[in-house]
Amino acid sequence: MSRLVIAIDPEGEPLEQWAKLASQVCEEAWGLKVGLPFLLSYGLRGLGELRRACDKFVIADLKLADIAPVMKSSAALLRGYVDAVIAHSFVGYAGALDELKEALEAMEMKLILVASMSHRGSEEVIDPSIERVMEVIRRADPWGLVAPATRPQIIRLLRERSFPQKIFSPGVGAQGAPPGSAIAAGADYEIVGRSITRAPDPLAAARAINLAHRRALESGRGAG
Amino acid sequence: MSRLVIAIDPEGEPLEQWAKLASQVCEEAWGLKVGLPFLLSYGLRGLGELRRACDKFVIADLKLADIAPVMKSSAALLRGYVDAVIAHSFVGYAGALDELKEALEAMEMKLILVASMSHRGSEEVIDPSIERVMEVIRRADPWGLVAPATRPQIIRLLRERSFPQKIFSPGVGAQGAPPGSAIAAGADYEIVGRSITRAPDPLAAARAINLAHRRALESGRGAG
Repeated sequence: MSRLVIAIDPEGEPLEQWAKLASQVCEEAWGLKVGLPFLLSYGLRGLGELRRACDKFVIADLKLADIAPVMKSSAALLRGYVDAVIAHSFVGYAGALDELKEALEAMEMKLILVASMSHRGSEEVIDPSIERVMEVIRRADPWGLVAPATRPQIIRLLRERSFPQKIFSPGVGAQGAPPGSAIAAGADYEIVGRSITRAPDPLAAARAINLAHRRALESGRGAG
Repeated sequence: MSRLVIAIDPEGEPLEQWAKLASQVCEEAWGLKVGLPFLLSYGLRGLGELRRACDKFVIADLKLADIAPVMKSSAALLRGYVDAVIAHSFVGYAGALDELKEALEAMEMKLILVASMSHRGSEEVIDPSIERVMEVIRRADPWGLVAPATRPQIIRLLRERSFPQKIFSPGVGAQGAPPGSAIAAGADYEIVGRSITRAPDPLAAARAINLAHRRALESGRGAG
């Protein structure tokens, strides 16, 4: 099974180019992730096209961080187009993630919460608040978590504290973490964007990452 | 001068209905605020229609909370459609707000940063981190701040610490804070949505709020 989520982050390309790329790399992907630039560029129609090109698990990475009514309205508009939605833990449970969780369950969509981010700025406010963030995660009890490959100690902390969620790790490739490093630290999936989608041969790049994942899992078993 | 920003938060209505409402209440508004539900529902075309209906200051309240490349791509797509963009302070400066600020300046758009939110969950992680959040704000030096009418002590704290930014306060009306209360605490603008846009007579509701604002300012002067 692949542990690769491919991030589709457009920079002005026509939608057809992304549909073609998704179709090319589809066999190597466990899922696809789209964010705000994708939705602002191509709208909901773009999500339909993407799924026709590659019918895998689709994550809407809107990094929702608003009051409950706004997050629920946003999620409701994505119903039928995506399988999971990413929101920020730091907005808290009461009047925010409590209602979003309930609304997503009713729509049969999964909630993924950000525990920490891949850039340096995550160390300024988010990471010093990690105990409070983990308390929000315990209350919200999401299906998945986001924790960065660039700071594997956060992934290890989530595993030590017995969080049962699937862990998705961005920060691999263009952002600096080597492929396989987050999986070695305990993540379930690595999210990779530019180092596949901007590669001269995206399928070969995706295969190389999946190979790195298998090696990371084998050395883990060897050590265990 | 009006100190009223009207929040346009659709729940499945046709765009024409919002354009009509914006035109009705335009004379009472200093500006308009749209969020993710508006953009997912109507796309960039919707922003064009809104501006044709009411040519005031438009704030894109995307609550951006991502790494720099994603926030910059999102903002670039809104260029020419909005005057300011709201982002979260929480994501930190390095690799996030540093680059967003620079990109917005180059595009002649203003940055507004969230200091605190209007719902109860803001007390779980954001408000206990307020000192770190204010440090991020000092470094990013945005044009505006968001601080909730529901917790006027945060507005007063920002003024005591001499933050020179324009302060925008949500949480008035449907969310519980009385009109004028944030302005009395030191905010520059109150953001009001449902209690205007869902009122039987939106223009009368907007006028009543502007009257409350003038009274809050007059009592402030009287006391001073």
